Amino acid sequence: MSFELTFPDGNKKSIDEGQSVLDVAKSISSSLAKKAVGATLNDELLSVDSTVNQAGHFAILTDADELGLRILRDTVAFLFKYVAKQKYPRIALGESKSDEDGFFVDTDQDNQIAVGELPEFEAEMKKIIKNGLPITREFVDKSKLVEAFKDDPYKTSMLKDIDAVQILAYRLGDFVDFGYKALLPNTGKIKEFALLSVAGAYWQGKSSNRMLQRIYGTAFFKASDLEADLKRREDIKERDHRTLGRDLDLFFVDPKVGAGLPYWMPKGATIRRIIERYIIDKEVADDYEHVYTPVLANLDLYKTSGHWAHYREDMFPPMDMGDDELLELRPMNCPSHIQIYKHHVRSYRELPIRIAELGMMHRYEKSGALSGLQRVREMTLNDGHTFVALDQIQEEFGKVLQLMMDVYHDFNITDYTFRLSLRDPNNTDKYFENDEMWENAQSMLKKALDELGLDYYEAEGEAAFYGPKLDVQTKTALGNEETLSTIQLDFMLPEKFELAYVGNDGEEHRPVMIHRGIIGTLERFIAYLTEIYKGAFPTWIAPVQVNMIPVNLDLHTDYVKEIKHALAQKGIRVQLDLRNEKMGYKIRESQTQKVPYTLVIGDQELADQTVTVRKYGEQDTTTVSVQEFTDQILADVASYSRDE
Amino acid sequence: MSFELTFPDGNKKSIDEGQSVLDVAKSISSSLAKKAVGATLNDELLSVDSTVNQAGHFAILTDADELGLRILRDTVAFLFKYVAKQKYPRIALGESKSDEDGFFVDTDQDNQIAVGELPEFEAEMKKIIKNGLPITREFVDKSKLVEAFKDDPYKTSMLKDIDAVQILAYRLGDFVDFGYKALLPNTGKIKEFALLSVAGAYWQGKSSNRMLQRIYGTAFFKASDLEADLKRREDIKERDHRTLGRDLDLFFVDPKVGAGLPYWMPKGATIRRIIERYIIDKEVADDYEHVYTPVLANLDLYKTSGHWAHYREDMFPPMDMGDDELLELRPMNCPSHIQIYKHHVRSYRELPIRIAELGMMHRYEKSGALSGLQRVREMTLNDGHTFVALDQIQEEFGKVLQLMMDVYHDFNITDYTFRLSLRDPNNTDKYFENDEMWENAQSMLKKALDELGLDYYEAEGEAAFYGPKLDVQTKTALGNEETLSTIQLDFMLPEKFELAYVGNDGEEHRPVMIHRGIIGTLERFIAYLTEIYKGAFPTWIAPVQVNMIPVNLDLHTDYVKEIKHALAQKGIRVQLDLRNEKMGYKIRESQTQKVPYTLVIGDQELADQTVTVRKYGEQDTTTVSVQEFTDQILADVASYSRDE
Repeated sequence: MSFELTFPDGNKKSIDEGQSVLDVAKSISSSLAKKAVGATLNDELLSVDSTVNQAGHFAILTDADELGLRILRDTVAFLFKYVAKQKYPRIALGESKSDEDGFFVDTDQDNQIAVGELPEFEAEMKKIIKNGLPITREFVDKSKLVEAFKDDPYKTSMLKDIDAVQILAYRLGDFVDFGYKALLPNTGKIKEFALLSVAGAYWQGKSSNRMLQRIYGTAFFKASDLEADLKRREDIKERDHRTLGRDLDLFFVDPKVGAGLPYWMPKGATIRRIIERYIIDKEVADDYEHVYTPVLANLDLYKTSGHWAHYREDMFPPMDMGDDELLELRPMNCPSHIQIYKHHVRSYRELPIRIAELGMMHRYEKSGALSGLQRVREMTLNDGHTFVALDQIQEEFGKVLQLMMDVYHDFNITDYTFRLSLRDPNNTDKYFENDEMWENAQSMLKKALDELGLDYYEAEGEAAFYGPKLDVQTKTALGNEETLSTIQLDFMLPEKFELAYVGNDGEEHRPVMIHRGIIGTLERFIAYLTEIYKGAFPTWIAPVQVNMIPVNLDLHTDYVKEIKHALAQKGIRVQLDLRNEKMGYKIRESQTQKVPYTLVIGDQELADQTVTVRKYGEQDTTTVSVQEFTDQILADVASYSRDE
Repeated sequence: MSFELTFPDGNKKSIDEGQSVLDVAKSISSSLAKKAVGATLNDELLSVDSTVNQAGHFAILTDADELGLRILRDTVAFLFKYVAKQKYPRIALGESKSDEDGFFVDTDQDNQIAVGELPEFEAEMKKIIKNGLPITREFVDKSKLVEAFKDDPYKTSMLKDIDAVQILAYRLGDFVDFGYKALLPNTGKIKEFALLSVAGAYWQGKSSNRMLQRIYGTAFFKASDLEADLKRREDIKERDHRTLGRDLDLFFVDPKVGAGLPYWMPKGATIRRIIERYIIDKEVADDYEHVYTPVLANLDLYKTSGHWAHYREDMFPPMDMGDDELLELRPMNCPSHIQIYKHHVRSYRELPIRIAELGMMHRYEKSGALSGLQRVREMTLNDGHTFVALDQIQEEFGKVLQLMMDVYHDFNITDYTFRLSLRDPNNTDKYFENDEMWENAQSMLKKALDELGLDYYEAEGEAAFYGPKLDVQTKTALGNEETLSTIQLDFMLPEKFELAYVGNDGEEHRPVMIHRGIIGTLERFIAYLTEIYKGAFPTWIAPVQVNMIPVNLDLHTDYVKEIKHALAQKGIRVQLDLRNEKMGYKIRESQTQKVPYTLVIGDQELADQTVTVRKYGEQDTTTVSVQEFTDQILADVASYSRDE
């Protein structure tokens, strides 16, 4: 019997029964056979020693394929487990997975594997790689595996979930494991790898279960790839707002008290407060009317708005207050701002009406999706809703864009792209029904962008059902694309809530709503800023702007306090380091804490009534009068420390 | 047969069967009989024509008794219903009640009774009072009442709830009503009364039921009492923050969207924002560390704190997030600030640690108890928790008191008293067990108060279980006593959360917690300020500080805009009145809106580059240069417009 295989290039080839992947590769070319690390047959992953047993789409995988990399990483994970079992025969094994970022293996024992042990593991693994031991592929009776893993509760549980008599397993010496589609056939085939870190992970991701120890690693076929990846990880770590948030004492999240619910420590809170005041003042000056609206509302409000019907899975469960009263934590602020609009009869003379708020919202996210300040369950959005007449769309849109550009300039944000999401011109029935409104609005948005000379790309078919929108896209340190700002037109909510204004003609007209966020949620924005600044916040937002270190606590503390008082009067945030520590240590810590200005004060400074200033990141110091320093830092604050 | 009655003065008297209240009164004195309006027998209310049918404590009620007033008010309500039925035979009648404040009657028909009809009703009622028609007391078969009210759904429902064959009813002509214990026997006995207002009220208080029209009124035996009461109501209305909140467009609450959940309109939000920034800046300058902590936490946190056990009825229902995760809206911020404290190991060198926040909290209040900004379900507290060593209590308490005094001074708050709540010295087992701690702490609080020379009264036995406290008490416009500020010592929460600091000795010690609120919740504080200022906010918090009125829109608008721009640059909140209205109207409205400065700009001002200024509440105007005016208003803001 023979099968016909179809290759990615469309070529077909007939092969005989009983041939392995390697046999097929060899039949094409010996160089391909040498490079082969596995294959796919009808999208199923195969090892090089798997038998090709049916016709279909077939592709040999090499070190150039992403899936080839997965096979490599699974093999390294397998090898890690082998070594772990050698070292700790009674260790239990949980989940293990590889993906585009690397791999992990969950382990469990009384004394969990510590990060300090990883070099030892690496050394042992390298030895076995050098020895080139065979990894064999075999189908094993489930009962034998159950027996083999009878002391391992996790493996036992996994086996229970597998409904088969025989299970595909891989063997290295007397270590057998299952749950892999394909591994490399010999430890000698493993190339570059690294064990990276350890972290706790609940069994099956449930916080009520036991916390296992997760070991992270990665692997590549080329040394240069591994090197580049390790450098990238180093860079991420240096920028990662979670690490910086901990090291600079900005915030913490404690899943025991509330997953996805950040606590802002005094320093993080200072940054947040400055940014809150900044954006409110900016918006008030731009004719926004700031309000405060409740985070709770009767569920009916979100039934009217449509959120309950279309967005329920992202919402918190309603609270039953008795007497048929159901209260809901809001997932968005728009219905609240609509209440403000509706509270008065509105005239065309008042338009555009710009309602803004730092609006707290709650969204349900699975605990696994939560991350630092970037993915949270409670967040405060720099939200704004403008109610305009149809013919005001272009001007208002331009005004929001201008505000956005000003804000980016102040924060020195330069890395972003504009995406204009339009409706699909070939499928207009999918959208809110009003062709003229769409055509007008879309062309007004483009005109506004063109007038400001902004580069943007059009994404046809990406508009929301209720209107076109503009998103400003950027990337996080971890490489995830993220929306920094958004401007969305909405034709639908004004209909649903029957919004109106009295026109020049004395008749009622329907306004258009513009949803807009300039800095998005404070949580995400500050995570983003932490990453782009690598924690070295510009002076105007730095929680501590000046750190003062007296050379001698007995002699110089009074003078230091005097300067602090003078600076504080000017609104400058000063910290005194009066600890009993060495001066070098204090200066180094001031750098680690990324304080913009470190002032060292000794005899000379006291005698001359000066200060010696070291700017963050600079080696040189300058000695200036207190007045000069005050002028310098105030100018720095006033200019937002921008690259001009 | 005869009964023995015991009178309030202890005298006893035996009376024969079948005698009425009036008969008993007559048997004592004819003047008492003349004054009698009813009686109580064993705390049951009786009419003058009720039969006294058992022994017990007996008291004749006259116009000097609060309960006599109730009988009068019930009789006026009854008379109102009679007139309503005469005027609108098909009108339905809901609940009706009298209390120490007056009475109300709920009515329902397609065209609800309007407030404009009340004088007509009053006139008709007065006619019947003059005619002196008898009101007779009788027991009526329930079935007859059911028949009589068969077209009235509310009366029908009320009758359904009465489990009796015969029901006490009162009759006036052919109008019969039930639900009263006692009425006056003749309309001629009704003295002074007034119908006051109308408002919507849900049947049975449930928002899912139909909204009836509630008519409010009051009644007294003496004309001078009615007059004083109407004046009091006028004064309350003028100060009532709910009325002012509506008239000045500060906030609104819409029970359809959420009972007890205020929406702050732009003007109210401006006041709130200024006060928020003021108090935060004040606290930061006073070495508080401001934080942001989440409104949600795992329910376990409130189990540990004891809130769930002792305070549950004031808390919102927990939200079930799945996977055994129960999230709770916090009723207080203390457990959150404890998380901040516990996030680091603390040293004695850091104490006192002062954590502060504008912390949003949620408390369940029955919808009937909600009122404007004073009683709400979502509130933001100017909260602070200081962690101190035992020997720091006095100094820290003094520091908080000083801050409090400064803040009162800035807001010109002068009407308050200090209440120091101590434990009951005869009943010390009721309190947290540590005699020495109590004694020390209490004496330190007294010393701190004495040192600042503050008058206070001691309330023994009023301390909380967990520690002594100081409350600053004031009164609302409605006459309710209210706590403005509070400082509470807490020995217990540090135990429950096992708080510690490392002492000078290297050992762990337990800190004491001080809970303190300076301005309380922003909701209540701004309600209070609105009332004490009668809505005329001092310049530094007024949402609009300057209202500018050009005499001629064509000629003077440019100049007005120029001045606005110059003032806005200085941070002054300016509004331009560019409407097509008469100048007199605009000036009057500026007064009604209680804007501190109204500027009128005409030819002369334009020619001289001046402004004509009218301060709120003054008749005179002055004409000064723009610079002079700017200096004047900036000085006004900087001085908090205080009475110096």
